[in-house]
Amino acid sequence: MTRRPPNIVAVLGAGSWGTTFAKILADAGAPYGTQVRLWARREDVAEEINTTRRNSRYLADTVLPENITCSTDVAEVLDGAELVAVAVPAQSLRPQLQAWKQLLHEDAVVVSLMKGLEVGSDARMSQVIAAELELPAHRVAVVSGPNLALEIARQEPTASVVACPDEQVAAWIAAACTARYFRPYTNPDVVGVEIGGIVKNVIALAVGICEGKQMGDNTKASVITRGLAETTRLAVALGGEAETMAGLAGMGDLIATCSSPLSRNHTAGRLLGHGLTLDEVTGKMNQTAEGIKSAQAVLDLAGQLGVDMPITENVVAVLQGTVSVHDLGARLLSRELKSEG
Amino acid sequence: MTRRPPNIVAVLGAGSWGTTFAKILADAGAPYGTQVRLWARREDVAEEINTTRRNSRYLADTVLPENITCSTDVAEVLDGAELVAVAVPAQSLRPQLQAWKQLLHEDAVVVSLMKGLEVGSDARMSQVIAAELELPAHRVAVVSGPNLALEIARQEPTASVVACPDEQVAAWIAAACTARYFRPYTNPDVVGVEIGGIVKNVIALAVGICEGKQMGDNTKASVITRGLAETTRLAVALGGEAETMAGLAGMGDLIATCSSPLSRNHTAGRLLGHGLTLDEVTGKMNQTAEGIKSAQAVLDLAGQLGVDMPITENVVAVLQGTVSVHDLGARLLSRELKSEG
Repeated sequence: MTRRPPNIVAVLGAGSWGTTFAKILADAGAPYGTQVRLWARREDVAEEINTTRRNSRYLADTVLPENITCSTDVAEVLDGAELVAVAVPAQSLRPQLQAWKQLLHEDAVVVSLMKGLEVGSDARMSQVIAAELELPAHRVAVVSGPNLALEIARQEPTASVVACPDEQVAAWIAAACTARYFRPYTNPDVVGVEIGGIVKNVIALAVGICEGKQMGDNTKASVITRGLAETTRLAVALGGEAETMAGLAGMGDLIATCSSPLSRNHTAGRLLGHGLTLDEVTGKMNQTAEGIKSAQAVLDLAGQLGVDMPITENVVAVLQGTVSVHDLGARLLSRELKSEG
Repeated sequence: MTRRPPNIVAVLGAGSWGTTFAKILADAGAPYGTQVRLWARREDVAEEINTTRRNSRYLADTVLPENITCSTDVAEVLDGAELVAVAVPAQSLRPQLQAWKQLLHEDAVVVSLMKGLEVGSDARMSQVIAAELELPAHRVAVVSGPNLALEIARQEPTASVVACPDEQVAAWIAAACTARYFRPYTNPDVVGVEIGGIVKNVIALAVGICEGKQMGDNTKASVITRGLAETTRLAVALGGEAETMAGLAGMGDLIATCSSPLSRNHTAGRLLGHGLTLDEVTGKMNQTAEGIKSAQAVLDLAGQLGVDMPITENVVAVLQGTVSVHDLGARLLSRELKSEG
């Protein structure tokens, strides 16, 4: 099966990543006449995109391609869309899906761009999508990688991973989002790719806290390294592959997030490290730092599976106020391990 | 065997890492009355350390412990030393060992602090030490990790790895260098630990070049991720363990080096990225950027073993002047890989 490129693609959610991914799809699909329809919650955002080609709240400097249209009417956006990418806040996904289900094209493939676990169910976003939309595994995919949206919007060269158990579907999605500046690779390991994107937000909080406390690059590199080790333990326990965690959606995404001042979770951690309370941090930030919401769910999942995740455990303790940021660095490095493994 | 802590330890080489490691050993050994003897090539360095407790060329702000003495007389330094740490430039090691051989204590364990391959033989430093000093494997060890010397000299918390095939010897060395701010773990995989430290200098050159060319964190994270993948392929082909490369001496050291403005190789890459010639870069730098010397040797070794190392290959081409730094980023991301593995 060599499937032709989609005529119509939908992107649900017009935040920084949703809008940027719409731009990727539009640039990739322009030679084939692909139309990209973006759904925004707010009328003013839709109108700004349609009239000025900009989404000034999230991507001030980016002019969006002509083949994107934006609407607040999700029925209009989904009508005939063969490929549907979803980028809404993780915790609000499930109730929205219920409203979208009847509007979905009968063959549509749904791609999660989200990085979080649902609080309460501890479910991954692809699981929530498959359950609520009653889709088989080959119609649900995940895109994840070292993908800071603002850099991609500036067309800086970036690699990414498209994960779907059906390799032909993965290849079809990858082709639909291959632009000059965006290069997706395929991987059948949905669990690994998704867990990499979820837990890196929690580790980025830890690294941000260390930075806020003025710790050096030796400490940060150790926390990132051990952070990937505990992420890998969780992914493998869930049936993912260790190799995935050593790739772009595991190590790559973690490093990009922990290096960049553009990352929300990293920034939230830094503010916590500077001594702000959780409420002050949340109040200061324009967008959701997903790690703050997912950390407890990650720890719950690890607990159910008997997986040791000391960094996540300490981040949760900081967020709950039972461990001070002053003590975090020492706690992360103080474990008495004789040998490394 | 629980071996008592060494009474006398020697550190050969008074550059920034040799001097910093002498401080670690001195702080760790102070409660046991350990004497640390540091060998410097230059008389003025030895005199400054002995009279002012400082090595102002490399560690301007650090006051060295009282139980360090420094000398230019290697016979005096090695006399009775049970533990000998070596931190001289990689390419000058072999001829110096010939002069040191007769002076070595009969039971001495020799620890390499060096990160390079010998040009010509493509030998690792522990191999050069074992061959020239005719030592069995259990008397040669390697210390490597995310260990930026200036951060350790400031006593910022740091983890590291002591590698020796004999676990008791590794544990004895680890105990001798465990300070409040320095936490070594043991690992029997000398090959993996050493290859991690060698190749990261080459990858750091590539990342530095990308940075000098103003590429973003997405690109850098991808180069670091794929850089560790090619390092791992080489280490495994040489008999090392993939797990080691996912640990502090592999991933940890690579991330610290590629994050820090303190890294020489990273800095050298950035200057190359800014358009300076190799001669101009070498002229500008106070200390050796080992990756510049080792890159060709790493590529030779990979070639002999049939290991694909595209980043190393491109770095060598830049150093030889056959690829421009302008083209490096595109070359690193342009390979047509369908799936990630």
